[in-house]
Amino acid sequence: MTSRIGFVGLGHMGSPIAENLIRSGHSLRIFNRTSEKVAPFVEMGAEQAATPADAASPGGIVFSMIANDRVMEIVTLEEHGILERLGKGGVHVSMSTLSPALARKLEKAHRERGAEYVAAPVFGRPEAAAARKLWICVAGAAGARARVRPLMEELGQGVFEVGDEPAEANVVKLANNFLIAAAMEAMAEAFTLGEKNGVPREKLAEIVGKTLFACPIYQGYGKAIAEERFEPAGFGLMLGLKDVKLALDTAEESQVPMPLAQLVHGRLLSAMARGRGKLDWAALALGAKEDAGLGEQ
Amino acid sequence: MTSRIGFVGLGHMGSPIAENLIRSGHSLRIFNRTSEKVAPFVEMGAEQAATPADAASPGGIVFSMIANDRVMEIVTLEEHGILERLGKGGVHVSMSTLSPALARKLEKAHRERGAEYVAAPVFGRPEAAAARKLWICVAGAAGARARVRPLMEELGQGVFEVGDEPAEANVVKLANNFLIAAAMEAMAEAFTLGEKNGVPREKLAEIVGKTLFACPIYQGYGKAIAEERFEPAGFGLMLGLKDVKLALDTAEESQVPMPLAQLVHGRLLSAMARGRGKLDWAALALGAKEDAGLGEQ
Repeated sequence: MTSRIGFVGLGHMGSPIAENLIRSGHSLRIFNRTSEKVAPFVEMGAEQAATPADAASPGGIVFSMIANDRVMEIVTLEEHGILERLGKGGVHVSMSTLSPALARKLEKAHRERGAEYVAAPVFGRPEAAAARKLWICVAGAAGARARVRPLMEELGQGVFEVGDEPAEANVVKLANNFLIAAAMEAMAEAFTLGEKNGVPREKLAEIVGKTLFACPIYQGYGKAIAEERFEPAGFGLMLGLKDVKLALDTAEESQVPMPLAQLVHGRLLSAMARGRGKLDWAALALGAKEDAGLGEQ
Repeated sequence: MTSRIGFVGLGHMGSPIAENLIRSGHSLRIFNRTSEKVAPFVEMGAEQAATPADAASPGGIVFSMIANDRVMEIVTLEEHGILERLGKGGVHVSMSTLSPALARKLEKAHRERGAEYVAAPVFGRPEAAAARKLWICVAGAAGARARVRPLMEELGQGVFEVGDEPAEANVVKLANNFLIAAAMEAMAEAFTLGEKNGVPREKLAEIVGKTLFACPIYQGYGKAIAEERFEPAGFGLMLGLKDVKLALDTAEESQVPMPLAQLVHGRLLSAMARGRGKLDWAALALGAKEDAGLGEQ
């Protein structure tokens, strides 16, 4: 089934997702802050919207993939924002990694205007998005979820229905990114222990990734951390810091002490301070190594 | 190829390994401190040894699977110990989780008597040992490793040759167990964050185990931690504490700060203090939950 869909945000993740929607036969009306980025999509048949509101259609479906909470508020709630035009019966599918607190605020704002807000954050890097291999966690009102589910299935390899409150999907996403950062810190410490005791980092990474931790995170990041290959950045350290900070903010609000999350937050912050913000966030692993006197890169 | 093999230590792991060696057609001569435990193996055709030395044969192969460093020193180095009889050309295959420091001492003691010490610690629980599904990390002199490799392959699903120094295999094992403990602490914090923000623990565990962390540790321990099912203990908390302590001791000796290892050590120690030493070591996860005011079990 093809349809007319609004789309806001052509970043690293938004671009391949928008392209896949077009290739699946949907008519997209796209807004992006840097308007030149829309041109190649217009060549593929999309329309260019002048504002986020202009991307939405009354009662229709609009996707957004936005870098952070602040920009999300602007494109959704402020003048010429999505909600200005989406209106009654419309569904806003928000794929961004946002704070659960903002998700709650947005859900309320949509409900007040008769629209639905569905949170659908994704697991996966831009390559996974391009290959329709994303994992998508969906939360929101059941009817709205059902309406957008076929679209989710076109974009990913698996869809998880988390619950009726959009914020819950954001919690899952933040928890997942925290787990990735924690796994990277654990490998960083383990590989450093190995290195200083005669076990090459690559050897340990190989054994770990082939035995009890034979899964993408330990295999992919394990190799990167063992080889200290942090460029090009699949997921930038600055973004990783943002996500761990969102997890800690959520933990603070809900009174959940997370000492491991604080540890990785410290690692990421230290990496920022050392000028590593543009490396892949796996560069947090340099902290454990340098702490052990193994020298700065 | 079948052969005559000495075997010392019929604990949770040693018993299924010894049984598999017998079923593969090898003649075992077994010593165990509690001698009654040897009886069923004698029924399967094994011989009972009166002392660890008596289990070994000059120039032969002897396996040991021992609970801790102290007992390993007794059965190997003290009076009536393995080394008293193993002698020139013999190979001692040590499958226990021991400190790298003891491995270095044992390697030296064996070399001085013309014997070889091969460290071959295993990944896997007793069920995995019984099903010949262990992962085995082997380190020691190349010739000795080659001699025992066929036996390793009979016992596990994969054999990793780590290096020429036995201690290196012990480092790999300790690093691996630290990674498991770290993953459990990470899940404990993530699931607690979820629980206090509307995402059921089981739902989060399911998503984690089916997506980026689709591997045995996150699936198995994730389910146990989500359901708070810590009995029967597949791997006792007291043993887990021992292993993390060995990792930290090794880190101390080699000057490797490991803040995450210290965090999980604290969790395990606290669990001991709360009387949880006989639960599975996944019960360390109760720490993060209780810190968040979710109540003692």
